[in-house]
Amino acid sequence: MGRFFVLDGPDGAGKTTQAARLAEHLRGGGATVVVLREPGATPAGEAVRDLLLDPDTDVTPMAEMLLYQAARAQVVEAVIRPALADGKTVVLDRYWYATAAYQGAGLGIDAGAIRAVSRVATGDLEPDHVFFLDLDPAVGLERCGGARDRIEGRPLDFHRRVRDGFLALARELGGRATLLDATAPADEVARRIREQADRVEGAA
Amino acid sequence: MGRFFVLDGPDGAGKTTQAARLAEHLRGGGATVVVLREPGATPAGEAVRDLLLDPDTDVTPMAEMLLYQAARAQVVEAVIRPALADGKTVVLDRYWYATAAYQGAGLGIDAGAIRAVSRVATGDLEPDHVFFLDLDPAVGLERCGGARDRIEGRPLDFHRRVRDGFLALARELGGRATLLDATAPADEVARRIREQADRVEGAA
Repeated sequence: MGRFFVLDGPDGAGKTTQAARLAEHLRGGGATVVVLREPGATPAGEAVRDLLLDPDTDVTPMAEMLLYQAARAQVVEAVIRPALADGKTVVLDRYWYATAAYQGAGLGIDAGAIRAVSRVATGDLEPDHVFFLDLDPAVGLERCGGARDRIEGRPLDFHRRVRDGFLALARELGGRATLLDATAPADEVARRIREQADRVEGAA
Repeated sequence: MGRFFVLDGPDGAGKTTQAARLAEHLRGGGATVVVLREPGATPAGEAVRDLLLDPDTDVTPMAEMLLYQAARAQVVEAVIRPALADGKTVVLDRYWYATAAYQGAGLGIDAGAIRAVSRVATGDLEPDHVFFLDLDPAVGLERCGGARDRIEGRPLDFHRRVRDGFLALARELGGRATLLDATAPADEVARRIREQADRVEGAA
């Protein structure tokens, strides 16, 4: 089985950049690396992503939560499990932690219900390590620029609850997660992620 | 609270026709009736429906199950609960029983997992009565005609398991469900549905 790393956190934290840098580092160490984003990664996943992020679509909170889980199930079954079985390393941009933070802490859907549906959607597949990139959502949204999608466009209070949700998950996961200050220089964040990933690889 | 009736069963059983006839009967009795189909009923629900039924889309079994649940959550939250709270009668063409039959009995997803996700998606909203229209799937698919969607296009063995799934649900629901022979004349099926619906109304 290959290694499975997740990067998660508020919008504008630099997950996509750091996922690419981690992948580059792991490839340098000889791994075959698949970088994926969620929702997305397959045509059906991208179709769900478009539906979720379109500011003109009216989606209820529970439907939103379940659409994210559907996109997640798709990428887990169709891409991640086959890649891991093939010995590849998977670097995933967002996972069920984002649903716990955005639709749980942010929208108020029951945490136990989200956890139960996440377990069904992922078949209990958990990453070897999670990197939570933390920053003040006011700073993160500023970094995202002007055009905001349906989720980014929510009030700052929502995004503050989301951040708190990620912080609570980081505490709960203990040694399986690393919490990083996303306002630190990108090179410094990348270095810390590399070092932790190497420790996970070393423990293989 | 208004009354809530569901019609479910294999493809080609005549649910859509019977839903319209039941609605007409209930309107004749003075009710304000909303007839809905699932998945569908809202723009987001119809978008999910298109994705699910498109023969060219590759959707994994678990993602399929969760997409149906997402569409269900959307229609429950956005349309059914407000209508019932408003005293309206809702006649719904398919509900979570279809997911238990198609994705559970048909595709082999664990029945307990489907039940758990259904409870989350519906917030435990159960209809006052369910009408299961039963028929041999070979006859039902013949009735559907030539152009089959992604689900209808599955092998006959799949559709036989789906039918057995519906029969098991009908037994399990006992007095809250009526099992009807969908090969009987449509007028006869409509009459039996009307009489049972009137008994439920009478018990209000």
